[in-house]
Amino acid sequence: MGSIEDGEVSNVDVLIVGAGPAGLMAATWMARCGINARIVDKRGTKIYSGQADGLQCRTLEIFDSFGFADRVWKESNHMLEICLWNPDSEGRIRRSDRIPDTIPDLSRFQQVVLHQGRIERFFLDSLKEHSSIKVERGVLPLSLSFDESKAEDLDAYPIEVELQHLTDEEASPEQNQASKSSGVSDGLFRSNMAPDDTEEILSKAAKNGRAGTREKIRAKYMIGCDGAHSWTRNQLGYKLEGEQTDYIWGVLDIIPITDFPDIRMRCAIHSADSGSVMVIPRENKLVRLYIQMTTTEKGDHEKLDRSNINPRMILESAQRTMAPYKLEYKYCDWWTAYQIGQRVGSNFSKNDRIFLAGDAVHTHSPKAGQGMNVSMQDTYNLGWKIAAVLNGTANRSILKTYQSERRRIAQDLIAFDHRFSRLFSGRPAKDVMDEAGISMEEFKDAFQKGNRFASGVAVDYGASVLVAKDGDAASQGDGSDAGINSARKRIIGKQSLATAIPIGMRMPSFKVLNQADARPWHFQERLTSNGKWRLVVFAGDVSDQQQMARVQRLGKSLASSSSFIPRFTPRGQPIDAVIEILTIHSAPRTTTELHDFPDILHPYSAKEGWDYWKVFVDDVSYHEGHGRAYENYGVDAKTGAVVIVRPDGYVAWIGELEDVRDMDDYFSAFMVART
Amino acid sequence: MGSIEDGEVSNVDVLIVGAGPAGLMAATWMARCGINARIVDKRGTKIYSGQADGLQCRTLEIFDSFGFADRVWKESNHMLEICLWNPDSEGRIRRSDRIPDTIPDLSRFQQVVLHQGRIERFFLDSLKEHSSIKVERGVLPLSLSFDESKAEDLDAYPIEVELQHLTDEEASPEQNQASKSSGVSDGLFRSNMAPDDTEEILSKAAKNGRAGTREKIRAKYMIGCDGAHSWTRNQLGYKLEGEQTDYIWGVLDIIPITDFPDIRMRCAIHSADSGSVMVIPRENKLVRLYIQMTTTEKGDHEKLDRSNINPRMILESAQRTMAPYKLEYKYCDWWTAYQIGQRVGSNFSKNDRIFLAGDAVHTHSPKAGQGMNVSMQDTYNLGWKIAAVLNGTANRSILKTYQSERRRIAQDLIAFDHRFSRLFSGRPAKDVMDEAGISMEEFKDAFQKGNRFASGVAVDYGASVLVAKDGDAASQGDGSDAGINSARKRIIGKQSLATAIPIGMRMPSFKVLNQADARPWHFQERLTSNGKWRLVVFAGDVSDQQQMARVQRLGKSLASSSSFIPRFTPRGQPIDAVIEILTIHSAPRTTTELHDFPDILHPYSAKEGWDYWKVFVDDVSYHEGHGRAYENYGVDAKTGAVVIVRPDGYVAWIGELEDVRDMDDYFSAFMVART
Repeated sequence: MGSIEDGEVSNVDVLIVGAGPAGLMAATWMARCGINARIVDKRGTKIYSGQADGLQCRTLEIFDSFGFADRVWKESNHMLEICLWNPDSEGRIRRSDRIPDTIPDLSRFQQVVLHQGRIERFFLDSLKEHSSIKVERGVLPLSLSFDESKAEDLDAYPIEVELQHLTDEEASPEQNQASKSSGVSDGLFRSNMAPDDTEEILSKAAKNGRAGTREKIRAKYMIGCDGAHSWTRNQLGYKLEGEQTDYIWGVLDIIPITDFPDIRMRCAIHSADSGSVMVIPRENKLVRLYIQMTTTEKGDHEKLDRSNINPRMILESAQRTMAPYKLEYKYCDWWTAYQIGQRVGSNFSKNDRIFLAGDAVHTHSPKAGQGMNVSMQDTYNLGWKIAAVLNGTANRSILKTYQSERRRIAQDLIAFDHRFSRLFSGRPAKDVMDEAGISMEEFKDAFQKGNRFASGVAVDYGASVLVAKDGDAASQGDGSDAGINSARKRIIGKQSLATAIPIGMRMPSFKVLNQADARPWHFQERLTSNGKWRLVVFAGDVSDQQQMARVQRLGKSLASSSSFIPRFTPRGQPIDAVIEILTIHSAPRTTTELHDFPDILHPYSAKEGWDYWKVFVDDVSYHEGHGRAYENYGVDAKTGAVVIVRPDGYVAWIGELEDVRDMDDYFSAFMVART
Repeated sequence: MGSIEDGEVSNVDVLIVGAGPAGLMAATWMARCGINARIVDKRGTKIYSGQADGLQCRTLEIFDSFGFADRVWKESNHMLEICLWNPDSEGRIRRSDRIPDTIPDLSRFQQVVLHQGRIERFFLDSLKEHSSIKVERGVLPLSLSFDESKAEDLDAYPIEVELQHLTDEEASPEQNQASKSSGVSDGLFRSNMAPDDTEEILSKAAKNGRAGTREKIRAKYMIGCDGAHSWTRNQLGYKLEGEQTDYIWGVLDIIPITDFPDIRMRCAIHSADSGSVMVIPRENKLVRLYIQMTTTEKGDHEKLDRSNINPRMILESAQRTMAPYKLEYKYCDWWTAYQIGQRVGSNFSKNDRIFLAGDAVHTHSPKAGQGMNVSMQDTYNLGWKIAAVLNGTANRSILKTYQSERRRIAQDLIAFDHRFSRLFSGRPAKDVMDEAGISMEEFKDAFQKGNRFASGVAVDYGASVLVAKDGDAASQGDGSDAGINSARKRIIGKQSLATAIPIGMRMPSFKVLNQADARPWHFQERLTSNGKWRLVVFAGDVSDQQQMARVQRLGKSLASSSSFIPRFTPRGQPIDAVIEILTIHSAPRTTTELHDFPDILHPYSAKEGWDYWKVFVDDVSYHEGHGRAYENYGVDAKTGAVVIVRPDGYVAWIGELEDVRDMDDYFSAFMVART
C-alpha cells in the first residue's frame, strides 16, 4: 500500500472511486441518505458509445425506487421474446423455439436494453436533484493508506488517499488505430483484452508540464468501483480467482439491413459449423450482435492480435453464421471484442471500511446481460448499510452482510455464466451420438432456467443479522461471518404467515389502493429508496371487530414510549423517520375510513395534518383491476401478518400482529437507541 | 385596427400571441411540423402559483402524442373517485354517493390535476427538443394591420404587427395588496374580476425612460391566444357573447388540517344553508377548495369589492359549509376569487388568416376543470391545419373547419357549464316541495353525464371537407361553412365497417403487438403528432389466403405510381412522409412473418433496411393481456377495413380494402399534388 506525504487533509465520510454504474449507484444512496460523499473517476468524459447492457427486471425495480425507471422504460428497447435458431437436418438454420424473454408475472417490469450513457445520465440527474454530490472526472487515486487499528472507532477517518487531478487531455482515453481510421468508435480500450492504462495515464501526467493538482483526503469509508483492473483491489492485495477461456467474441452495434425475420427479437443462433451469434435488438433501430470469431478457433492458446480485429471481419463471421440470410449495414455505431472469463474476488472488503464492488470483484461474459446489473446491485446492497452506520442508526455489524450476501451472488453468477458460455460457444451436436457437440435441448433448458436467474429477482440472501431466517448463515452466504451475535437470542421470522413473501428475497409487488383516495399503486412504488425501514402491517379484515381490536392493540404498542419505533427514532424527527409503517388491510374499501385506524398508521403533523399515503387496501380499482394482494402474498385475509422490509426492499422478518417483542429483538440486534 | 409605421420588417410564417397553454400547444405543432413561427407573451415571467387545472383524459392522450404525458402522469395527483356530500334530514352533511371520477374504459388515461406551471414546462422542454422556437416574454403587440385582399394569396404575408419589447420590470404583474402583506401569492390579477392591464402596462412602458425596443413583423398567419381580455380579438372587433352571473367563488390552495374523511377525494359538498364547496385534491399534499362566498348572497347586483376578499374570509366560508368537520391550514400556496360567467366568441377567425383560441373565445367557470383543456384542444385542432397549408400539403379549405369544429365545442361547453354552475351554486332542496332549491338527484345525474363530456373524448366533429360523414355540415358544426366543395362528389365513410371507431371522433386505443418484436403498444402510442396522416389498414385474417390476396392487391394499388400516396408525397421524401400506413392484422402472430406483407406496409430504405414499426397484430401479449382490438374497434376479424385518421387523431373516413378510389377522392378534395 502506498503512503502519503504530510500536509493539509480534507475529510469526507465516503469516498467512491469509479463513476460507472456501480459507483453512481453508491453515490445515489449517499445522496438520498444525506451522507457527505465524493465520487471520482479517472476518465475525463462521461459517455461512451456502445456499452449497452440488458437491464434486469430487478434493476428496473431498483431504479423505480429512486424515481427514474420510467425514463429507462420509455427510451429503452423492450425485449419480449427469445427465438432459438438451430441447424436442421440439412444444416440450415431454422427457428426452433420461442421463449418469453422475461418469465410472465415475475416482476412488474420486463428486461430492456439501453445505452449505458443514458443510465449514467439518469443517475447524474438524480444526484443533482437530491444532493450536491457531483462526479469529479479526471481524478485518480495515487496512494492509499489505512489505519487498521481505528477500524472500529466510529469517529475515526482511518483511510487516507492522495488524489491526482488530471488535465482534460490526460483524462481522455485513446481509441485504437482501426477506429481512428474508420471513424467508428470502439470499446476495445475497455475490453478485457486491453491492458490496464492507469500506469500509462499517470506516467503521461508526470511528464506533462501542465499536470493537474494533487490533494489528500481522509475518509471514514471507501468504495472501489474501479473496474476489472481495480486500483483499489490491487492496493489491498486482493485477487480475482477463476479462469479465462479461449473463446473470443466480437460485438457489433449496427442498423442491420437484413432479411433475417427475427432481427428485432433476442435470438440465439447456433450454426452447424460456422459459430454462434446472439442478436440483441436495441433502441434507435440499432441491433447488437455478439459474434463468435470462428477465425480464432485455430490455435488453442494463440492470442488474437487485437490490432487485427475490425468490424468487417466481425461482420463476415456473422454472415457465415446467419447464412443463407443476408446481413449488411450502412451504419455501425460501435464495436468491440472480448475474451470470455469468469473470475470472482477473494475478499469484498478490508475491515468493513474499504469495499470493492462491480467489475472489481467479478468478471464474466457480457452476453447474458448481467454485468451492469450485478455491479449496480452490489452497491445497492452496500450503500444504505454504510449510510445507516454513518447516520448512527445501525451499528457496524450490518456491514459484514455485504460480503456474505454479494460474494455469494458473484459466485452464483460466474457459475451461471460458465455454463451458459460453454453451451453458447460450443458447436451444436449433429445427433445424439455426437458427444463433442452441444445438445440443443440442454441449451434451451439452460436458457429457460437462466432466465429466472437473469431477471435478478431470484436473489435470496442468507440468514444474517439482517435476515431473520432459519438455517446456517455461513452456508447460505459465501462462508464468511454474517454478523449474527451468538450471545443474543436469534430471531427467526414466521415464513408460514406470508408464504409468497420469502424472507431474504425482495418484497414482491401487487396492486393495492390508497384508502384515502382510491388510487391504485404497485406496492413496491411505496418502497422508495430513502434509507427507511418498513413495517408492513397486513391488517387483515378490519371490518371484523375482533381483528380491528388486534390492529388497535398493535398501534397502541408501537406508539407507546417504550416501543422500538420511538427508541430508534432521533428526538425531534418525525415518528416515521427511521421505521415507516405501511398498512394493507383486506376489508372492502368503502366499509372503513382512514380515521378508523390508529394514528401511528397515518401520523398526524401539526403543520400538515394527517398522512394520507400510508394505509392501503386490497380491493378492486376502477381502472386497473384487482391486485389480489393478500392472495398473491400468501397472507391470510382475515388475520394478516407483519413484515419487516429492509431499506433495499429485501424481506427481513415476518410475524404476527402480536409479535412486537420479536420485532423489537430483531431491530435491537443492530440498531442504536437514541437518547 | 391600428396601423404601423414604415420601416424594416421581418417575416414569419406564424405569429402566436400569448404563451399560455393554448399558445404553447400551437407552437408545439409548429415545432413538430418544421414551421417558422414566433410566440410572444406580454408577461415577463413564466410560472404562477396556483393556476391548477384538471387535465382531461383527452388532453393526456394529446400530450402523449407529443411524448410528455408520462411526465404529467408521474407528477400529477390522480383523481379516482368523486364523493357527493349533501345535507341529511337534520341538515348535517353526509356522503350520499361515490362515482368514479373518470368513466372506466373511456380512455387509457384518467383525469389528473397538476399545476399549470409544470404543464408549461413540459411544453417548453418539448419545443426545445424539437425546434429552435423560444417563447419571447415581455413582448406585446401594439398594432395590427391586415390586407384582406391578399388573404387567398399563398405567398403573401398579409398580416403586419408592431411589437413592443418590455423591460423586465414592466413585464411583471403586480400582486394585490392583501397578498403582499400575507406573503401568499394570489391570482386575482388573472381573475375575470380583474380589469385588463394591457393599457396600464403600455402606459407605464411609455413613461419609462428605459423602455424596450419596438419591431415590426409580417406574418402569413397569426393566432391570438391572449386570454379573456384578448388584444387580438379587440383589434378584430369581435365580441364575446353570453352572460355573467352573480355567483362569486373563492379558491384556496392549502395543505388542509382536517378530520373531513374525503379530503383526498374530489368532492361536491352542498350544505343546507351555508353554500357549496368543491374539493380538488392536488399534488404535493395540496388541496384546492372552490368555495361559494356566502357573504355575497345579500345583494343580487352588489359587486363584491375585491380588496375585501382575503384567504381568511374564504376559509371561514368553507368552514361553515363543511361543519361539523374541522378545517384549518398552516400553509396556503395560492388563492383567488372569480365571478361565474359563460361567454363565447362571435367569430373564431378573420379570413382564415388570423385565428382566436382559448380564453379569447370562450370563458366559463373553472370548477369543471375544462378551461385549460378546451383551450389547448382549440390550437391542437388548428395547428396542424395551418402547418399543412404552409408546407404545401393541403389547400386553404381545411382552415374553415377550425371554426366549424371548435366554435361548436365552445358552445357545447358553455351550455354544460351553465347548467353545472347553476346546480352547484344553488341551495339544495329541502324536500320535493321545495321548488326554489336544487334537486340533489338532478345534480348527481348532471354530474355523471357531465363526466363523459368533461373527459374530452366525447368530442364529435361534424361533416366537413376533413370528416367524411353523412348529414348536414352546418348543423353538425357552428353553422359556418365547413369547406365542403359542392362541385365535387361528396365522400361518405362506411361507418358500419368499424362500428366502434366513430367518424368525427378521436381514434380509440387498444393494445396491439408489434409483429416484428411482439411488444405490446396502445395503438394511440403509434399516432405521434408529427403532421402525418394515417391509413390504418385492418388487414383481417391474413392466414387466410384469399384475405392475404386482398391485402396484396391493396398494397400493389397503394404502391403504384398513380396512387394518391406518391402523388401527395414530395419527390425525394420517404413514402411515409405525408401519409403513413399502419397495419393491424388478426391472424395469430406466430403464423406470419413481417416479410409476408407488401413492402409498402413496412417500407424499405437503402440505409436502414426495412421498417419494423408499422405492422401490428391483435394477439395476446406475454405480460399485458390481450387487447382484443378487432372486437373493441368493431371491425370484422376476417375481412378488416381501412380507416383514415387525421394528423390530430380524429377519424376521417372508413372503407373497405378495395375502396382505394374513395381514399383518393377523400384526399384529393383538399390535398395538393406534388410535381
